[in-house]
Amino acid sequence: MDRVVIVGGGFAGLAAARRLGDDPLEVEVVVVDQHNFHTFQPLLYQVATAGLDPADVAYPIRTVLRRARHVRFVHGRVSGFDLSARSVLLEDGLGLSYDYLIVASGATAATFDVPGVADHALFLYTLDDARWVRNQVLAALERADAAAPDETLSLVIVVVGGGPTGVETAGAMAELIDIATRHDRLRLDPTGTRVVLLDAKERVLPGFSAAASAYAGRILRARGVEVRLGLGVEAVSAAGVTLTGGELVTASVVIWAAGVTVDGTVAAGLMGRRGPGGRVVVERDLSLPDHPEVFVVGDAAAVPGPDGTALDEGHLEPGGTRQFLPQLAQVAIQSGDHAARQVVRRLESRPPTSFAYRDKGVMATIGRRSAVAQLAGGTVFCGTIGWIAWLALHLVYLIGFRNRMVVLINWAWHYFRWPSGPRLIIGDVPARPPAEPRPGRIGCPECGG
Amino acid sequence: MDRVVIVGGGFAGLAAARRLGDDPLEVEVVVVDQHNFHTFQPLLYQVATAGLDPADVAYPIRTVLRRARHVRFVHGRVSGFDLSARSVLLEDGLGLSYDYLIVASGATAATFDVPGVADHALFLYTLDDARWVRNQVLAALERADAAAPDETLSLVIVVVGGGPTGVETAGAMAELIDIATRHDRLRLDPTGTRVVLLDAKERVLPGFSAAASAYAGRILRARGVEVRLGLGVEAVSAAGVTLTGGELVTASVVIWAAGVTVDGTVAAGLMGRRGPGGRVVVERDLSLPDHPEVFVVGDAAAVPGPDGTALDEGHLEPGGTRQFLPQLAQVAIQSGDHAARQVVRRLESRPPTSFAYRDKGVMATIGRRSAVAQLAGGTVFCGTIGWIAWLALHLVYLIGFRNRMVVLINWAWHYFRWPSGPRLIIGDVPARPPAEPRPGRIGCPECGG
Repeated sequence: MDRVVIVGGGFAGLAAARRLGDDPLEVEVVVVDQHNFHTFQPLLYQVATAGLDPADVAYPIRTVLRRARHVRFVHGRVSGFDLSARSVLLEDGLGLSYDYLIVASGATAATFDVPGVADHALFLYTLDDARWVRNQVLAALERADAAAPDETLSLVIVVVGGGPTGVETAGAMAELIDIATRHDRLRLDPTGTRVVLLDAKERVLPGFSAAASAYAGRILRARGVEVRLGLGVEAVSAAGVTLTGGELVTASVVIWAAGVTVDGTVAAGLMGRRGPGGRVVVERDLSLPDHPEVFVVGDAAAVPGPDGTALDEGHLEPGGTRQFLPQLAQVAIQSGDHAARQVVRRLESRPPTSFAYRDKGVMATIGRRSAVAQLAGGTVFCGTIGWIAWLALHLVYLIGFRNRMVVLINWAWHYFRWPSGPRLIIGDVPARPPAEPRPGRIGCPECGG
Repeated sequence: MDRVVIVGGGFAGLAAARRLGDDPLEVEVVVVDQHNFHTFQPLLYQVATAGLDPADVAYPIRTVLRRARHVRFVHGRVSGFDLSARSVLLEDGLGLSYDYLIVASGATAATFDVPGVADHALFLYTLDDARWVRNQVLAALERADAAAPDETLSLVIVVVGGGPTGVETAGAMAELIDIATRHDRLRLDPTGTRVVLLDAKERVLPGFSAAASAYAGRILRARGVEVRLGLGVEAVSAAGVTLTGGELVTASVVIWAAGVTVDGTVAAGLMGRRGPGGRVVVERDLSLPDHPEVFVVGDAAAVPGPDGTALDEGHLEPGGTRQFLPQLAQVAIQSGDHAARQVVRRLESRPPTSFAYRDKGVMATIGRRSAVAQLAGGTVFCGTIGWIAWLALHLVYLIGFRNRMVVLINWAWHYFRWPSGPRLIIGDVPARPPAEPRPGRIGCPECGG
């Protein structure tokens, strides 16, 4: 019996597993992930800003796959691939041999080699990242409150990156501070307590229309976020963020939402060419060049888009003309599903087909009752209608009925009884490591720093 | 304006804060806790066995105290007390001066100086403890499943202590393994996968009637728990638990639910006499001898019971005749409330009153649809009726409406769609530290080891 190994239980990996689980094929499917749960990444920012609990956006992979009897889950960390021996290597020394391989291993936060980012900034890609951000921010709020009355501690949260993650995080952080001050009666210095959103580009939400970007910027400012655009970051230190011109934006917490890159060690075993952000370049059917039995999908792959798609330069092949799709949940789901369909076609000895992306639009929420939803045709919904669209879509896609119910109640409660979010600091909150600001560096491609 | 400082946001501390918050007195109340949330300890075992998520049993202290405008929360760890200067010392160097002090700082797991317990056993007193147990157990299940098919890993979970915590944990662990095997299709060795409950006494649930104890033991055994009574523990090592006679019970995970003790460093600053388990001996009005302005309540205190109460020997004053109440949530709530009332009486220049415990009975659940509830008069409810009583009582006492709703849904879902509990491994799962078994020691007062 043929064995299909799927590396990763994110959107792409689970889409592939579900497709193969639905098919009454004579195959054995093995899903490998270092976590035993799927993370609903679009809502991680809500965990980071204490609107939802970690478990609200996580769902056990075994439960997702329970009905597909020929799909098995292995809890383990992948250390590499042996393509010639057709084997996935696990950190504990075991190997998983395969006939077909679908790599959906995702990405990691990209530091763009900006000095100090790895040591002093917080990321928002995994559930642990989000828990860490939340604990740091809540602990910083508590520290500011516990300070002696005559000593006002300023609390500045800097978010670097004006994409959906950065915009959603900054908007929700401003609301968190509002709750903390007005409802929890934390004694914060009103002038020293700020949320700053930085981006090298001249507008937030570059993947959206100019009107949607302008709306998002307006709403963020109205809610008290200091939006500073066209500014590159030169370095991050314990003191804060140093901008290209030398200006230091002091910060208690720096959240780095500037982009993602594909982990070198995992991708190295796949050989082949690298696209922007270290992504693995694949054929039109999403298979690895010279390895028709290996597919790379989701954030790990440079998923080819239709020629002529309007994409910003980050998704253009360096020095080439091919365009790649952005790293979105929809691209991950559709590419995972496509790879599984290709496996089925091979098993049935049918020829491969090219991946064709069905653009379902993009959306981002800016806070309570404000979101922008941009449909594929370019139509934009803003404000409450956009927010309801955002809410409905995320609930529909949240894996598992139980999580949907709990999240809905959390949200309804959060909405109608506004200040009752789950602001728990669960787990350790080590102090930020003391460190000297390092000398700056010039020439970061992403942030212009 | 007089200031009342309450140390601890558990049952006792919050009961005191709520009483003082309700009173329209001219006092300032400060609640200090190292966590910014209250933990609903009676359900910690459900977190440890993946029936509930950590956030389901935690509630932000600020939210609990929101309506009482003269009650303030300080997030900090208490390092000691200066009774003569009337000041509570915090670890960050700050001091909180008080006119009245209510110490409700709880207890910690007691190792009874049994070798290896601190290094190799897991506790179940704090939310972090419960998360840690859960992650260890789920990771052990995953390890057993991921082992090569020809190498069957045995998985033995040993619970030491036959009180309510031990009984509830052992029962729920047996159910967790049942779910893992039957529904999640983990490949576990059916003969090598066991839950063992150990106790030095001849019966489980010593605080209950003999009939209730016998019922609990019967149900546990019927559900696959190996109940071994009358056995002392000599040592715990990486290999497992060594019994007094020298027998080694091999174990993948050892959960130590044998009792609690009062933290020496916090209690040391209070001086005065120590009762059983290091508890601070207080006057009949719960004040500290020679310090009528200081009250000690909850698990930290040796709360005096009425003379002649039937209590087991663990609650008798060593060498004396005074009896102390067991460390239960009801004792904590009522003693915290009583201390707050005493503060009010002092402020109103009225004489102190003695603490009188209203026994509301005790209950423990043994798993799905089985519990024992023993009323104050001695009436015992078992089975489904006991379980419904247990469920209703715990829901009524769960602080905060939102948590009640979410927990109710989790439970209903868990119950009707049985195998869908939140079995997430969130956070790190370090390997157990490698260690050599240490030489045993004889003479442990609690377990007979």
